[in-house]
Amino acid sequence: MSKITELLKWRYATKKYDPSKTVPAEKVERILEAVRLTATSSGLQPFELFVITNAEIREKIKAVSWNQAQVTDCSHLLVFAAWDDITPERVNMMFDLTNQVRGTINEGWENYRKQLLGIVAQRGKEANYQAAARQAYIGLGSALIAAANEEVDATPMEGFDPAAVDEILGLGAKHLRSVVILPLGHRAAEGDWLVNLEKVRRPREQFVTEIH
Amino acid sequence: MSKITELLKWRYATKKYDPSKTVPAEKVERILEAVRLTATSSGLQPFELFVITNAEIREKIKAVSWNQAQVTDCSHLLVFAAWDDITPERVNMMFDLTNQVRGTINEGWENYRKQLLGIVAQRGKEANYQAAARQAYIGLGSALIAAANEEVDATPMEGFDPAAVDEILGLGAKHLRSVVILPLGHRAAEGDWLVNLEKVRRPREQFVTEIH
Repeated sequence: MSKITELLKWRYATKKYDPSKTVPAEKVERILEAVRLTATSSGLQPFELFVITNAEIREKIKAVSWNQAQVTDCSHLLVFAAWDDITPERVNMMFDLTNQVRGTINEGWENYRKQLLGIVAQRGKEANYQAAARQAYIGLGSALIAAANEEVDATPMEGFDPAAVDEILGLGAKHLRSVVILPLGHRAAEGDWLVNLEKVRRPREQFVTEIH
Repeated sequence: MSKITELLKWRYATKKYDPSKTVPAEKVERILEAVRLTATSSGLQPFELFVITNAEIREKIKAVSWNQAQVTDCSHLLVFAAWDDITPERVNMMFDLTNQVRGTINEGWENYRKQLLGIVAQRGKEANYQAAARQAYIGLGSALIAAANEEVDATPMEGFDPAAVDEILGLGAKHLRSVVILPLGHRAAEGDWLVNLEKVRRPREQFVTEIH
């Protein structure tokens, strides 16, 4: 079994956290770093991460998340917030950063910038947001593996009111929209109905089709 | 540096593959297994994977993918195809499978099934597809890390005509829609303009916000 398979088998959507257990800062940092390093379309990284330990704000978020206790019982609450639009300013910011870091201006890259600016202008705000939100989910995939690698439990959650979370965190002013939240912490196994149940996935033959 | 950080730093969006190098089947299997084991919302796994080695079909896909050579030069081409809708049949299929695998019927789980059936009915086909597509991107996140762990190069690509790829692969009849494709193979470093350039990501302070 590969290391990655092992990590994916170890993890599960934790239903009950032990609120007395804090994830060490260096583990949280390595999880955040995995998300930051994640590939995104055209390298735009069209989302940001919020790391919430503040108890009051977590209570507010819980109230708009079907009262799921993981939001307040976890150690750190991550909120993935996508760009509400892929604007020329944001595209240029990332392309300029790329030129700056690499210390070169590449003609092919500059032509691609123009092409991409045309695509996002034509696609419009809502479709740009949807495209940005998808990229955040690549980061979620990295976060889940990175957390398992630190033996940190995690619960990917879509069951919340995004507009309400945006309001609580003031995301509108930052032109961001919350798309998925991820409590991190340590399981309270004795109170978790899912921890001992078998992981369920469709068998390979119902999931993979080979075309030779 | 954690193992996951290492893998994420090793990988890059490969621009040129060596068509003479085939990825061994057992490595491909471990990458597919990582995607199959990936977490998805409500455990639905609302997407499928196509693994294409057929040269003729890859030529057709390349023609609708801005003629990007990775599509035909790679060893294996993965196509992530999301459910075009989250229908009651599909929800019931996964909930029934869960009951079957776990050998128990849980009242809370059955209540959640009813709630979810209500949500997807109300949300409608297009929004269900969008939600399914996001889940495929969690799988993409797993695939990229799993490929790096096998020292297999990969190129996440959105630059293709999804409707045309759906047509080529007959996805419509399967009620699937292509969302992202992923060539896998081995880099031809000497012809790859990107391989030696620095990876560019926004610094942590422009990507992460802590709320204490």
